[in-house]
Amino acid sequence: MFDAVTSEDPRVIRTRKDVLAAAMNILISDGWGAVTHARVAKQSGYSRATIYAHWPRPLDLISDAFGQFQEIPHYEKSGDPKTDLRGEVMSFSRAMVEHRLDRVLASLVEHAQTTPEVVEIRQSFVVAGEAPMRETLLSLASGSEREAVVLMLCGMVSHSVLMHGKPPSKAAVNSAVDIVLRGLSKG
Amino acid sequence: MFDAVTSEDPRVIRTRKDVLAAAMNILISDGWGAVTHARVAKQSGYSRATIYAHWPRPLDLISDAFGQFQEIPHYEKSGDPKTDLRGEVMSFSRAMVEHRLDRVLASLVEHAQTTPEVVEIRQSFVVAGEAPMRETLLSLASGSEREAVVLMLCGMVSHSVLMHGKPPSKAAVNSAVDIVLRGLSKG
Repeated sequence: MFDAVTSEDPRVIRTRKDVLAAAMNILISDGWGAVTHARVAKQSGYSRATIYAHWPRPLDLISDAFGQFQEIPHYEKSGDPKTDLRGEVMSFSRAMVEHRLDRVLASLVEHAQTTPEVVEIRQSFVVAGEAPMRETLLSLASGSEREAVVLMLCGMVSHSVLMHGKPPSKAAVNSAVDIVLRGLSKG
Repeated sequence: MFDAVTSEDPRVIRTRKDVLAAAMNILISDGWGAVTHARVAKQSGYSRATIYAHWPRPLDLISDAFGQFQEIPHYEKSGDPKTDLRGEVMSFSRAMVEHRLDRVLASLVEHAQTTPEVVEIRQSFVVAGEAPMRETLLSLASGSEREAVVLMLCGMVSHSVLMHGKPPSKAAVNSAVDIVLRGLSKG
Protein backbone atom coordinates (compact mmCIF):
# COMPACT_ATOMS: atom_id res chain seq x y z
CA MET A 1 0.00 0.00 0.00
CA PHE A 2 2.74 2.45 0.95
CA ASP A 3 6.20 2.64 -0.61
CA ALA A 4 7.70 1.81 2.72
CA VAL A 5 6.00 -1.56 2.79
CA THR A 6 7.83 -2.99 -0.17
CA SER A 7 11.01 -0.93 -0.20
CA GLU A 8 14.17 -2.74 0.77
CA ASP A 9 16.01 0.45 1.58
CA PRO A 10 17.15 -0.09 5.18
CA ARG A 11 16.49 3.56 6.04
CA VAL A 12 12.91 3.27 4.89
CA ILE A 13 12.47 0.06 6.81
CA ARG A 14 13.85 1.67 9.93
CA THR A 15 11.67 4.75 9.55
CA ARG A 16 8.61 2.57 9.21
CA LYS A 17 9.54 0.50 12.24
CA ASP A 18 10.26 3.54 14.42
CA VAL A 19 7.11 5.41 13.42
CA LEU A 20 4.81 2.43 13.95
CA ALA A 21 6.42 1.54 17.27
CA ALA A 22 5.87 5.14 18.41
CA ALA A 23 2.23 4.99 17.30
CA MET A 24 1.63 1.75 19.23
CA ASN A 25 3.38 3.07 22.34
CA ILE A 26 1.22 6.18 22.32
CA LEU A 27 -1.92 4.07 21.88
CA ILE A 28 -0.94 1.86 24.81
CA SER A 29 0.01 4.69 27.14
CA ASP A 30 -2.59 7.34 26.30
CA GLY A 31 -5.29 5.75 24.22
CA TRP A 32 -6.47 5.70 20.64
CA GLY A 33 -7.33 9.40 20.47
CA ALA A 34 -3.76 10.37 21.37
CA VAL A 35 -2.38 8.84 18.15
CA THR A 36 -2.03 12.05 16.11
CA HIS A 37 0.55 12.93 13.47
CA ALA A 38 2.02 15.65 15.71
CA ARG A 39 2.43 13.28 18.63
CA VAL A 40 3.86 10.44 16.56
CA ALA A 41 6.30 12.86 14.89
CA LYS A 42 7.48 14.15 18.25
CA GLN A 43 7.88 10.70 19.79
CA SER A 44 9.55 9.05 16.79
CA GLY A 45 11.80 11.96 15.81
CA TYR A 46 10.61 12.05 12.19
CA SER A 47 8.95 15.02 10.51
CA ARG A 48 5.19 15.36 10.27
CA ALA A 49 5.59 15.67 6.48
CA THR A 50 7.27 12.26 6.28
CA ILE A 51 4.56 10.68 8.41
CA TYR A 52 1.69 12.34 6.50
CA ALA A 53 3.22 11.19 3.21
CA HIS A 54 3.08 7.53 4.22
CA TRP A 55 0.10 7.49 6.54
CA PRO A 56 -2.43 10.17 5.59
CA ARG A 57 -4.81 9.44 8.48
CA PRO A 58 -4.25 8.47 12.13
CA LEU A 59 -6.20 5.29 11.34
CA ASP A 60 -3.54 4.37 8.74
CA LEU A 61 -0.88 4.65 11.43
CA ILE A 62 -2.93 2.54 13.84
CA SER A 63 -3.77 -0.08 11.24
CA ASP A 64 -0.11 -0.58 10.22
CA ALA A 65 1.02 -0.45 13.85
CA PHE A 66 -1.24 -3.41 14.60
CA GLY A 67 0.15 -5.26 11.61
CA GLN A 68 3.64 -4.84 13.00
CA PHE A 69 2.80 -5.44 16.67
CA GLN A 70 4.97 -8.40 17.64
CA GLU A 71 4.93 -8.07 21.37
CA ILE A 72 2.98 -11.24 22.03
CA PRO A 73 5.59 -13.70 23.26
CA HIS A 74 5.59 -16.90 21.27
CA TYR A 75 5.05 -20.04 23.30
CA GLU A 76 7.34 -22.93 22.34
CA LYS A 77 5.29 -26.08 21.98
CA SER A 78 6.47 -29.22 23.80
CA GLY A 79 4.17 -31.67 22.02
CA ASP A 80 2.29 -32.60 25.21
CA PRO A 81 -1.31 -31.30 24.93
CA LYS A 82 -1.75 -30.43 28.60
CA THR A 83 1.58 -28.62 28.82
CA ASP A 84 0.99 -26.80 25.55
CA LEU A 85 -2.58 -25.67 26.29
CA ARG A 86 -1.56 -24.42 29.73
CA GLY A 87 1.48 -22.71 28.20
CA GLU A 88 -0.56 -21.00 25.52
CA VAL A 89 -3.22 -19.75 27.93
CA MET A 90 -0.59 -18.47 30.38
CA SER A 91 1.36 -16.86 27.55
CA PHE A 92 -1.73 -14.96 26.36
CA SER A 93 -2.48 -14.02 29.95
CA ARG A 94 1.01 -12.67 30.62
CA ALA A 95 0.95 -10.67 27.37
CA MET A 96 -2.28 -9.04 28.54
CA VAL A 97 -0.57 -7.71 31.64
CA GLU A 98 3.12 -7.34 30.82
CA HIS A 99 2.75 -6.02 27.28
CA ARG A 100 -0.48 -4.14 27.97
CA LEU A 101 -2.33 -6.21 25.43
CA ASP A 102 -5.38 -5.44 27.60
CA ARG A 103 -5.21 -1.78 26.55
CA VAL A 104 -4.61 -2.68 22.94
CA LEU A 105 -7.59 -5.03 22.84
CA ALA A 106 -9.85 -2.69 24.80
CA SER A 107 -9.17 0.04 22.23
CA LEU A 108 -9.76 -2.31 19.32
CA VAL A 109 -13.00 -3.60 20.80
CA GLU A 110 -14.37 -0.13 21.51
CA HIS A 111 -13.48 1.38 18.14
CA ALA A 112 -14.66 -1.66 16.19
CA GLN A 113 -18.14 -0.89 17.54
CA THR A 114 -18.33 2.33 15.55
CA THR A 115 -15.65 2.19 12.81
CA PRO A 116 -16.07 -0.61 10.23
CA GLU A 117 -12.41 -0.39 9.14
CA VAL A 118 -11.35 -1.27 12.66
CA VAL A 119 -13.33 -4.52 12.45
CA GLU A 120 -10.81 -5.82 9.89
CA ILE A 121 -7.84 -4.78 12.00
CA ARG A 122 -9.35 -6.50 15.02
CA GLN A 123 -10.12 -9.64 13.05
CA SER A 124 -6.56 -10.05 11.69
CA PHE A 125 -5.11 -9.43 15.10
CA VAL A 126 -7.40 -11.89 16.89
CA VAL A 127 -7.00 -14.61 14.26
CA ALA A 128 -3.19 -14.36 14.53
CA GLY A 129 -3.41 -14.47 18.33
CA GLU A 130 -5.59 -17.59 18.37
CA ALA A 131 -3.57 -19.48 15.76
CA PRO A 132 -1.16 -21.36 18.10
CA MET A 133 -4.02 -22.65 20.24
CA ARG A 134 -6.02 -23.76 17.20
CA GLU A 135 -2.94 -25.61 15.97
CA THR A 136 -2.48 -27.46 19.26
CA LEU A 137 -6.17 -28.42 19.20
CA LEU A 138 -6.06 -29.82 15.65
CA SER A 139 -5.34 -33.35 16.85
CA LEU A 140 -7.52 -33.12 19.96
CA ALA A 141 -10.88 -31.82 18.81
CA SER A 142 -12.83 -30.95 15.70
CA GLY A 143 -15.94 -29.08 14.60
CA SER A 144 -17.98 -27.37 17.30
CA GLU A 145 -15.87 -28.94 20.06
CA ARG A 146 -12.71 -27.27 18.76
CA GLU A 147 -14.55 -23.99 18.37
CA ALA A 148 -15.89 -24.31 21.92
CA VAL A 149 -12.44 -24.96 23.39
CA VAL A 150 -10.77 -22.08 21.52
CA LEU A 151 -13.48 -19.70 22.70
CA MET A 152 -13.41 -21.00 26.28
CA LEU A 153 -9.63 -20.95 26.75
CA CYS A 154 -9.01 -17.63 24.97
CA GLY A 155 -12.21 -16.29 26.49
CA MET A 156 -11.24 -17.06 30.07
CA VAL A 157 -8.24 -14.78 29.62
CA SER A 158 -9.93 -11.93 27.77
CA HIS A 159 -12.99 -12.04 30.06
CA SER A 160 -10.89 -12.10 33.22
CA VAL A 161 -8.54 -9.34 32.13
CA LEU A 162 -11.03 -7.06 30.38
CA MET A 163 -14.07 -7.57 32.64
CA HIS A 164 -12.42 -8.21 36.00
CA GLY A 165 -9.23 -6.22 35.44
CA LYS A 166 -6.92 -9.09 36.36
CA PRO A 167 -5.57 -12.25 34.72
CA PRO A 168 -7.02 -15.63 35.67
CA SER A 169 -5.15 -17.37 38.50
CA LYS A 170 -2.71 -20.12 37.57
CA ALA A 171 -4.93 -22.58 39.46
CA ALA A 172 -7.96 -21.56 37.36
CA VAL A 173 -5.97 -21.93 34.12
CA ASN A 174 -4.74 -25.38 35.15
CA SER A 175 -8.28 -26.44 36.16
CA ALA A 176 -9.66 -25.16 32.87
CA VAL A 177 -7.19 -27.17 30.80
CA ASP A 178 -7.83 -30.28 32.93
CA ILE A 179 -11.62 -29.90 32.51
CA VAL A 180 -11.24 -29.45 28.76
CA LEU A 181 -8.94 -32.45 28.28
CA ARG A 182 -11.15 -34.71 30.41
CA GLY A 183 -14.32 -33.39 28.81
CA LEU A 184 -13.46 -33.67 25.13
CA SER A 185 -15.44 -36.53 23.62
CA LYS A 186 -12.31 -38.08 22.05
CA GLY A 187 -10.31 -37.68 25.24
CA MET B 1 -26.22 9.67 47.04
CA PHE B 2 -28.75 11.85 45.26
CA ASP B 3 -32.18 12.83 46.62
CA ALA B 4 -33.78 10.97 43.79
CA VAL B 5 -32.30 7.70 44.95
CA THR B 6 -34.18 7.55 48.23
CA SER B 7 -37.18 9.73 47.48
CA GLU B 8 -40.48 7.93 47.21
CA ASP B 9 -42.13 10.76 45.29
CA PRO B 10 -43.37 9.03 42.13
CA ARG B 11 -42.50 12.06 40.00
CA VAL B 12 -38.92 11.98 41.22
CA ILE B 13 -38.73 8.24 40.58
CA ARG B 14 -40.07 8.71 37.08
CA THR B 15 -37.66 11.56 36.33
CA ARG B 16 -34.77 9.45 37.47
CA LYS B 17 -35.89 6.49 35.40
CA ASP B 18 -36.44 8.57 32.25
CA VAL B 19 -33.16 10.46 32.53
CA LEU B 20 -31.07 7.34 33.14
CA ALA B 21 -32.80 5.41 30.35
CA ALA B 22 -32.03 8.30 28.00
CA ALA B 23 -28.38 8.32 29.12
CA MET B 24 -28.04 4.57 28.50
CA ASN B 25 -29.74 4.77 25.11
CA ILE B 26 -27.38 7.54 24.02
CA LEU B 27 -24.38 5.52 25.24
CA ILE B 28 -25.55 2.45 23.31
CA SER B 29 -26.34 4.30 20.09
CA ASP B 30 -23.57 6.90 19.94
CA GLY B 31 -20.93 5.96 22.48
CA TRP B 32 -19.70 7.15 25.85
CA GLY B 33 -18.60 10.60 24.67
CA ALA B 34 -22.10 11.41 23.44
CA VAL B 35 -23.54 11.26 26.98
CA THR B 36 -23.63 15.00 27.70
CA HIS B 37 -26.11 16.99 29.82
CA ALA B 38 -27.41 18.77 26.72
CA ARG B 39 -28.04 15.56 24.85
CA VAL B 40 -29.63 13.75 27.80
CA ALA B 41 -31.87 16.79 28.46
CA LYS B 42 -33.02 16.84 24.85
CA GLN B 43 -33.66 13.13 24.66
CA SER B 44 -35.38 12.78 28.05
CA GLY B 45 -37.41 16.00 27.87
CA TYR B 46 -36.17 17.31 31.22
CA SER B 47 -34.28 20.58 31.72
CA ARG B 48 -30.51 20.69 31.86
CA ALA B 49 -30.82 22.40 35.27
CA THR B 50 -32.73 19.43 36.67
CA ILE B 51 -30.18 17.00 35.31
CA TYR B 52 -27.17 19.02 36.52
CA ALA B 53 -28.71 19.28 39.97
CA HIS B 54 -28.85 15.51 40.39
CA TRP B 55 -25.92 14.40 38.25
CA PRO B 56 -23.19 17.07 38.20
CA ARG B 57 -20.91 15.17 35.80
CA PRO B 58 -21.60 12.99 32.74
CA LEU B 59 -19.86 10.17 34.64
CA ASP B 60 -22.53 10.46 37.37
CA LEU B 61 -25.21 9.91 34.73
CA ILE B 62 -23.35 6.95 33.28
CA SER B 63 -22.66 5.40 36.67
CA ASP B 64 -26.32 5.56 37.75
CA ALA B 65 -27.50 4.44 34.32
CA PHE B 66 -25.45 1.25 34.70
CA GLY B 67 -26.92 0.72 38.16
CA GLN B 68 -30.39 0.85 36.66
CA PHE B 69 -29.65 -1.09 33.46
CA GLN B 70 -32.00 -4.06 33.59
CA GLU B 71 -31.99 -5.11 29.99
CA ILE B 72 -30.29 -8.43 30.56
CA PRO B 73 -33.08 -10.97 30.25
CA HIS B 74 -33.30 -13.22 33.26
CA TYR B 75 -33.02 -16.91 32.51
CA GLU B 76 -35.49 -19.07 34.45
CA LYS B 77 -33.67 -22.01 35.95
CA SER B 78 -35.09 -25.51 35.39
CA GLY B 79 -32.94 -27.31 37.96
CA ASP B 80 -31.18 -29.47 35.35
CA PRO B 81 -27.51 -28.40 35.19
CA LYS B 82 -27.04 -28.96 31.47
CA THR B 83 -30.23 -27.12 30.55
CA ASP B 84 -29.46 -24.28 32.95
CA LEU B 85 -25.84 -23.76 31.90
CA ARG B 86 -26.82 -23.78 28.22
CA GLY B 87 -29.71 -21.40 29.00
CA GLU B 88 -27.51 -18.99 30.90
CA VAL B 89 -24.79 -18.89 28.23
CA MET B 90 -27.37 -18.41 25.46
CA SER B 91 -29.16 -15.74 27.48
CA PHE B 92 -25.92 -13.78 27.94
CA SER B 93 -25.15 -14.27 24.27
CA ARG B 94 -28.55 -13.00 23.12
CA ALA B 95 -28.30 -9.96 25.41
CA MET B 96 -24.97 -9.10 23.78
CA VAL B 97 -26.63 -8.88 20.39
CA GLU B 98 -30.28 -7.96 20.96
CA HIS B 99 -29.76 -5.47 23.77
CA ARG B 100 -26.42 -4.21 22.49
CA LEU B 101 -24.70 -5.34 25.65
CA ASP B 102 -21.62 -5.63 23.38
CA ARG B 103 -21.52 -1.85 23.03
CA VAL B 104 -22.14 -1.33 26.71
CA LEU B 105 -19.34 -3.68 27.70
CA ALA B 106 -16.93 -2.37 25.04
CA SER B 107 -17.40 1.14 26.44
CA LEU B 108 -16.94 -0.03 30.02
CA VAL B 109 -13.82 -2.01 29.14
CA GLU B 110 -12.21 0.87 27.24
CA HIS B 111 -12.96 3.56 29.82
CA ALA B 112 -11.96 1.37 32.76
CA GLN B 113 -8.45 1.35 31.27
CA THR B 114 -8.01 5.04 31.95
CA THR B 115 -10.66 6.10 34.52
CA PRO B 116 -10.42 4.41 37.95
CA GLU B 117 -14.05 5.27 38.83
CA VAL B 118 -15.19 3.23 35.86
CA VAL B 119 -13.45 0.16 37.26
CA GLU B 120 -16.01 0.08 40.09
CA ILE B 121 -18.93 0.48 37.70
CA ARG B 122 -17.59 -2.33 35.54
CA GLN B 123 -17.01 -4.58 38.52
CA SER B 124 -20.56 -4.21 39.91
CA PHE B 125 -22.01 -4.78 36.46
CA VAL B 126 -19.93 -7.88 35.72
CA VAL B 127 -20.49 -9.43 39.16
CA ALA B 128 -24.26 -9.01 38.75
CA GLY B 129 -24.11 -10.51 35.27
CA GLU B 130 -22.17 -13.58 36.38
CA ALA B 131 -24.27 -14.24 39.48
CA PRO B 132 -26.84 -16.66 37.94
CA MET B 133 -24.11 -18.85 36.46
CA ARG B 134 -22.15 -18.91 39.71
CA GLU B 135 -25.35 -19.96 41.49
CA THR B 136 -25.98 -22.86 39.09
CA LEU B 137 -22.37 -23.98 39.55
CA LEU B 138 -22.53 -23.99 43.36
CA SER B 139 -23.52 -27.64 43.52
CA LEU B 140 -21.37 -28.72 40.56
CA ALA B 141 -17.91 -27.33 41.21
CA SER B 142 -15.85 -25.54 43.82
CA GLY B 143 -12.60 -23.63 44.20
CA SER B 144 -10.50 -23.15 41.11
CA GLU B 145 -12.73 -25.47 39.06
CA ARG B 146 -15.76 -23.22 39.64
CA GLU B 147 -13.68 -20.17 38.83
CA ALA B 148 -12.41 -21.85 35.66
CA VAL B 149 -15.92 -22.73 34.48
CA VAL B 150 -17.36 -19.26 35.16
CA LEU B 151 -14.50 -17.67 33.24
CA MET B 152 -14.70 -20.18 30.37
CA LEU B 153 -18.48 -20.03 29.86
CA CYS B 154 -18.85 -16.26 30.30
CA GLY B 155 -15.56 -15.80 28.46
CA MET B 156 -16.65 -17.74 25.39
CA VAL B 157 -19.46 -15.25 24.93
CA SER B 158 -17.55 -12.05 25.64
CA HIS B 159 -14.54 -13.19 23.59
CA SER B 160 -16.68 -14.26 20.63
CA VAL B 161 -18.82 -11.11 20.62
CA LEU B 162 -16.14 -8.55 21.45
CA MET B 163 -13.18 -10.05 19.58
CA HIS B 164 -14.93 -11.76 16.65
CA GLY B 165 -17.97 -9.49 16.41
CA LYS B 166 -20.47 -12.33 16.56
CA PRO B 167 -22.03 -14.56 19.23
CA PRO B 168 -20.83 -18.14 19.58
CA SER B 169 -22.85 -20.66 17.56
CA LYS B 170 -25.48 -22.70 19.39
CA ALA B 171 -23.46 -25.83 18.54
CA ALA B 172 -20.33 -24.35 20.17
CA VAL B 173 -22.30 -23.36 23.29
CA ASN B 174 -23.78 -26.86 23.56
CA SER B 175 -20.36 -28.46 23.06
CA ALA B 176 -18.82 -26.17 25.69
CA VAL B 177 -21.42 -27.12 28.30
CA ASP B 178 -21.02 -30.81 27.46
CA ILE B 179 -17.22 -30.59 27.76
CA VAL B 180 -17.50 -28.78 31.09
CA LEU B 181 -20.00 -31.22 32.58
CA ARG B 182 -17.99 -34.26 31.47
CA GLY B 183 -14.71 -32.67 32.52
CA LEU B 184 -15.54 -31.53 36.05
CA SER B 185 -13.74 -33.78 38.51
CA LYS B 186 -16.95 -34.43 40.51
CA GLY B 187 -18.97 -35.06 37.39
